[in-house]
Amino acid sequence: MKPAGTIDALMTPGLHQVDVVRVGPDAGDRGRDIAAVEEPLEIRLGGTPFVVIMRTPGADRDLVAGFLLSEQIVRTSADIASMRYCVEPGLGTRDSGLGDQGSGTGDSGSGTRSEGSEIDVSNVINVWLTGEAADRAARQLAERRHAVVNSSCGVCGRRSIDDLMTGLAPIDSALSVSRTIIAALPERLRAVQQVFDATGGLHAAGLFDRHGRLEEVAEDVGRHNAVDKVLGASLLRGRLPLDDRILFVSGRTSFEIVQKAVVARVPIVASVSAPSSLAIDLAQEARLTLLGFVRGASFNIYAGEQRVVL
Amino acid sequence: MKPAGTIDALMTPGLHQVDVVRVGPDAGDRGRDIAAVEEPLEIRLGGTPFVVIMRTPGADRDLVAGFLLSEQIVRTSADIASMRYCVEPGLGTRDSGLGDQGSGTGDSGSGTRSEGSEIDVSNVINVWLTGEAADRAARQLAERRHAVVNSSCGVCGRRSIDDLMTGLAPIDSALSVSRTIIAALPERLRAVQQVFDATGGLHAAGLFDRHGRLEEVAEDVGRHNAVDKVLGASLLRGRLPLDDRILFVSGRTSFEIVQKAVVARVPIVASVSAPSSLAIDLAQEARLTLLGFVRGASFNIYAGEQRVVL
Repeated sequence: MKPAGTIDALMTPGLHQVDVVRVGPDAGDRGRDIAAVEEPLEIRLGGTPFVVIMRTPGADRDLVAGFLLSEQIVRTSADIASMRYCVEPGLGTRDSGLGDQGSGTGDSGSGTRSEGSEIDVSNVINVWLTGEAADRAARQLAERRHAVVNSSCGVCGRRSIDDLMTGLAPIDSALSVSRTIIAALPERLRAVQQVFDATGGLHAAGLFDRHGRLEEVAEDVGRHNAVDKVLGASLLRGRLPLDDRILFVSGRTSFEIVQKAVVARVPIVASVSAPSSLAIDLAQEARLTLLGFVRGASFNIYAGEQRVVL
Repeated sequence: MKPAGTIDALMTPGLHQVDVVRVGPDAGDRGRDIAAVEEPLEIRLGGTPFVVIMRTPGADRDLVAGFLLSEQIVRTSADIASMRYCVEPGLGTRDSGLGDQGSGTGDSGSGTRSEGSEIDVSNVINVWLTGEAADRAARQLAERRHAVVNSSCGVCGRRSIDDLMTGLAPIDSALSVSRTIIAALPERLRAVQQVFDATGGLHAAGLFDRHGRLEEVAEDVGRHNAVDKVLGASLLRGRLPLDDRILFVSGRTSFEIVQKAVVARVPIVASVSAPSSLAIDLAQEARLTLLGFVRGASFNIYAGEQRVVL
C-alpha cells in the first residue's frame, strides 16, 4: 500500500490519474497520483430500475450476476437471458460489450479481468431474466416498493454528481489550518479510540475544531455510520453549519463520505488512507479540501489546497 | 490493531465476547476474543419504514440524526420532534433511552458515548419530524417507491438472521483444508492484485480451490462488490454450487459477506482482518467456517473449525 503509483498501474482498469500536492516534513510538491475509480452502476431488471451500486468499473457483468445471486433472484447462468448497457438511461440498450455474451451458456470464459475496455460505457445495465428468475425479480420489485429500505448509502435515488449537488452551494469557508495541526489528527483520534484497538473491526470518525481539538468521535462497523454519528451528534447539539471544523476518518474516503461532509458544510476532510476518484471529483466541485494518506508528518492534498498552510 | 482484546475493552459499548480457536505455527488454542457488534437498525419516519442500516449499536440517536442530515431531510435539531425505540416492530414505541430527549432542543448535551446502556434495546427507531422536514420526508418516501434503488447491501427488506436464512439450508460441505493452505492465501491474492498496490484504495476478493489455487479475483472500492464479482464470475461460468471453494477477502468480514458466501454455498470464508459479531452468528447458524486475522502462519477460527486440519 503506497500513495504513489507506477506507469504500469495506469494500464489497469479501475485506475484514474489525478493531480496531487504531496506534503512532507519540509515542503509540498506538486505531482500526479493514482486513485481507484468509483462510479455508480444502475441495474435494471426488464427495464425497471432495481438498484444503484457505487462500484469500480470493470467486470460489471460479473458484479451484476453476483449481486443478483446474493439477492437470491438468479441461481444459475441460465437464469440470465441477456445483459446490456443502456446507451442513454430510458432510451433502450445497445449491443456491445456485455451484449449477447450474457446469454447464460455458462461457458463463455469471460473472466474478471476481461472487461477493461468497457470502462467508458454507460453506467446503466439492463438485465433480462428467464422463467422463474423473472418471477422472483417481479416479486422482489413489488416487495421493495412496500419495504422502502436501503443501505446507508448516500446515492439512493441519485444518478450523478450533478443530481447530488442540486440545491447545495459550494463551500466558501475561509478556514485554513497548518500542516502541523493536520499531521496531529491521526494520533489524537487513536488516543480516544477504544473499540478499534480491541477488535481491529471498527471504523472511526472524529470531528476536530480549527485548533485540532477533538470535538466528537464515533466508531462503527460501517465507515459511513461513524461519519453520520459525529455529524448527527453535532446537529443535535445545534452546531451546524460545521464550517470551521475538520472531519477525519480512519478508512478510505468514498464519494458518500465527501457528500455527507458537504451537506454538513465541513470544509476539510482528511483520512489515513486513499480517496476514490469520485470523492476527489465531488470535493473539487464542492470546493472542499480533501486530504489523504495522513501519516506521520506527510499527507496528500487532492482538492482545496488553499485551506492548508504549508 | 490486534486480534486479542482486554477486559477493559469488554466494558466498551459495541463489543461482544466470542469463542475462538487461535491457530499459530505449532498448534491451536481455544480462547476468547472480542468482536465488534453489528446489528440492523430500522429507521421509520412517522411510522413508515424508511431504511435499514447495519451498524454498531451505541449513539443510535446521533446516527439517525446524521443519516437524516445526509439525506437532506433534517437540517437542524428543531426538525426532529422525537425519536423512540419501538418495543416490537409494528406495535408502537416505548419511552426509554432516546425518548423525549430527542425533542430537538439542540442543547441536550448527550454525546456519542452516552448511550452504552441502549445496546440491548430494540433495533427499530421511529422518528417524528416537524413542519418542512416532515414534508421533505414524505416526498423522499414517495420518490423511493418509484426509484426502487438501494446500495449493494444484502439486508434490504430483511430484518433478522432468521429472515435471511429462510429457504437456505446450512452448508454440509465435507471440505477440509490444511493450516498451511490457509496461511498461503493472503500472499497468493496479493501476488495478482494490481490496483490495490498502486492506490491503496481498493478491496480485493479471491476465490480459491481446495488446493489453495486462485480461481477468480476481483478488486473494487466496495468490499461487497469485490465478493459479488468473484461469485458472479463463477456463476456465469456454471460453477455453482461452490461447495469445495474458499473465499478470501482483504478487509473486514461483515454479515453481508457471509450471507453472500452462504447463498453461493462457499463453505470457508477467510480474511486478513476481523469479522463482525453478526458475521460470526450467521456463520455458526449456516455451519460455515469463518477465519479471521490470517497473517503469516497464524489465524483465528470463529466458526466451523471441523474444516481446518491442524
